[in-house]
Amino acid sequence: MNLALIGYGNVGKAFARLLARKHAQFPFRIVGVHTARHGTAMDARGLDVDPSFGPSAASIDEFLDRSGAEVVFELTPLNPSTGEPAMSHIRAAFARSMHVVTANKGPVAHAYAGLRDEALRAGVQFRFESTVMDGAPVFNLVRETLPGVEILGFAGVLNSTTNIVLEAMEAGRTLEEGVETARRLGIAETDVSYDLDGWDAAAKTAALANVLMDGRVTPLDVETRGIRRQTPEKLAELKAKGKTVRLVSRTHRGKEGLKMRVRAEVLDAADTLAAARGTSSFLLLETDLMGTLGVFENNPGVEQTAYGLFSDLVDIARVI
Amino acid sequence: MNLALIGYGNVGKAFARLLARKHAQFPFRIVGVHTARHGTAMDARGLDVDPSFGPSAASIDEFLDRSGAEVVFELTPLNPSTGEPAMSHIRAAFARSMHVVTANKGPVAHAYAGLRDEALRAGVQFRFESTVMDGAPVFNLVRETLPGVEILGFAGVLNSTTNIVLEAMEAGRTLEEGVETARRLGIAETDVSYDLDGWDAAAKTAALANVLMDGRVTPLDVETRGIRRQTPEKLAELKAKGKTVRLVSRTHRGKEGLKMRVRAEVLDAADTLAAARGTSSFLLLETDLMGTLGVFENNPGVEQTAYGLFSDLVDIARVI
Repeated sequence: MNLALIGYGNVGKAFARLLARKHAQFPFRIVGVHTARHGTAMDARGLDVDPSFGPSAASIDEFLDRSGAEVVFELTPLNPSTGEPAMSHIRAAFARSMHVVTANKGPVAHAYAGLRDEALRAGVQFRFESTVMDGAPVFNLVRETLPGVEILGFAGVLNSTTNIVLEAMEAGRTLEEGVETARRLGIAETDVSYDLDGWDAAAKTAALANVLMDGRVTPLDVETRGIRRQTPEKLAELKAKGKTVRLVSRTHRGKEGLKMRVRAEVLDAADTLAAARGTSSFLLLETDLMGTLGVFENNPGVEQTAYGLFSDLVDIARVI
Repeated sequence: MNLALIGYGNVGKAFARLLARKHAQFPFRIVGVHTARHGTAMDARGLDVDPSFGPSAASIDEFLDRSGAEVVFELTPLNPSTGEPAMSHIRAAFARSMHVVTANKGPVAHAYAGLRDEALRAGVQFRFESTVMDGAPVFNLVRETLPGVEILGFAGVLNSTTNIVLEAMEAGRTLEEGVETARRLGIAETDVSYDLDGWDAAAKTAALANVLMDGRVTPLDVETRGIRRQTPEKLAELKAKGKTVRLVSRTHRGKEGLKMRVRAEVLDAADTLAAARGTSSFLLLETDLMGTLGVFENNPGVEQTAYGLFSDLVDIARVI
């Protein structure tokens, strides 16, 4: 299968390395890479992990037309308030009967139902496993291993930067020092307020609600508060009482539709969600038939996000 | 699809209730139930959840021949040291080209590779999701959502009775009082030493190693120690130091094959596995491509085990 990548940052490169490593067993081929900064690379015989970029394609449309790809990977940076330009890229791929895998949570958080229906009409697959928990199976888990199950709600610790910042403050350091640690780990968003004010977690919450609970929501529908009101003094005091704080996403089905919120919650140190430490994340799915089921991802890096893309790709190859 | 059940205890009945509840969407039909105690029930049009038992079939062979089933559910109590009679029942089903789902960990712990190969030769499916973590996806998770991933090892808290007993002792009660609590919860094995000495955990460890790491091992290959040497005094002392004890299953690939052990481990209270409290279980899979991935099941009951059988059944219907 021939693949085209839009965007080639750390995740794209890690994905290309993973494909190279698994090529004998999974003979996928990257035939085009388009970037805003370096230009466009294309080779129908397959590109290297470190491709030579030529002049930029005139447009995404032209890039996709020339690429000859069957699956398009949308890997551009997120504009959190609109989901663009990722959404337009995805639609351009659908219009050409190309399958799409995205690591970009914007489209799923802002417009999932529409994109799902467009993919269906175009007869193509649309996948996004790595948008919420990197490579850990969440969407694929529910679709493939929980037949007949209804997701009644969920609770999760889904943003690593706030986790690192809260841990730093619990250890007596300042919020700014915590942010510095998160930056050194390479996990903070470019605009860190997107993490601290809860918007990254809200986008993930909306994405989960849209896909797993057939929501028609956007991140703006999530009642969102961040961690700015936490202080080292308050966290030390709570710690002495056996309590800890996490930025928790919660969703349940209320009488008037989905109730979603992101909030810094005081948890008992023995609370299951408190097990999300460092950059780990933890999602608890509340189900009708299977009780509460958790997925835990331990300190993921860019390789795990790349694996999320890979697992989506393999699944597309299996179902088409 | 027509189903036959061998054994009809709590799990079998919960499974029948689940099938009745989901019948509109998943039109499976139980056409035969065979029990050692109540006799045999058969009806080609489908049996009730509370069937009328007639005289016992002369043998499992005769029961299977008369049932007309396509999928056989092996739900008899476990003989931990041999895997029988479940193994013979499974082979009898294979010999009749019937698919098999079992909730019985013995066969997978004792003879997985052989059974897998026999199923392959017979052209039938062999499934066992509920043997290790009730209904939580473990085997189905790896097979369906982790393509290309190699499992390098695992660590897990997989036995609820010991968890309940250790918690009781941590709270100052005796081992016997903890066992009493576990019995009231209906989770202790008939012979509780099977839990306390680690054999249930060892069987689960062997089952995971056989399936996920292509082991050819039995529970006897697991270096197994139970929790008998733990005391309320010792646990209280550890707790004061921020430590806790769990019966942990661990497996990794050593130079001379799989190294497996079950042991009461002293964990930091902040250790991820310490999040397995009460009857919850937690399995951490160490992988090559996806780092460490965890599956957590919160306080499961018999309904979750029944769901494990159901998810296997739906998957069989999907792949055949």
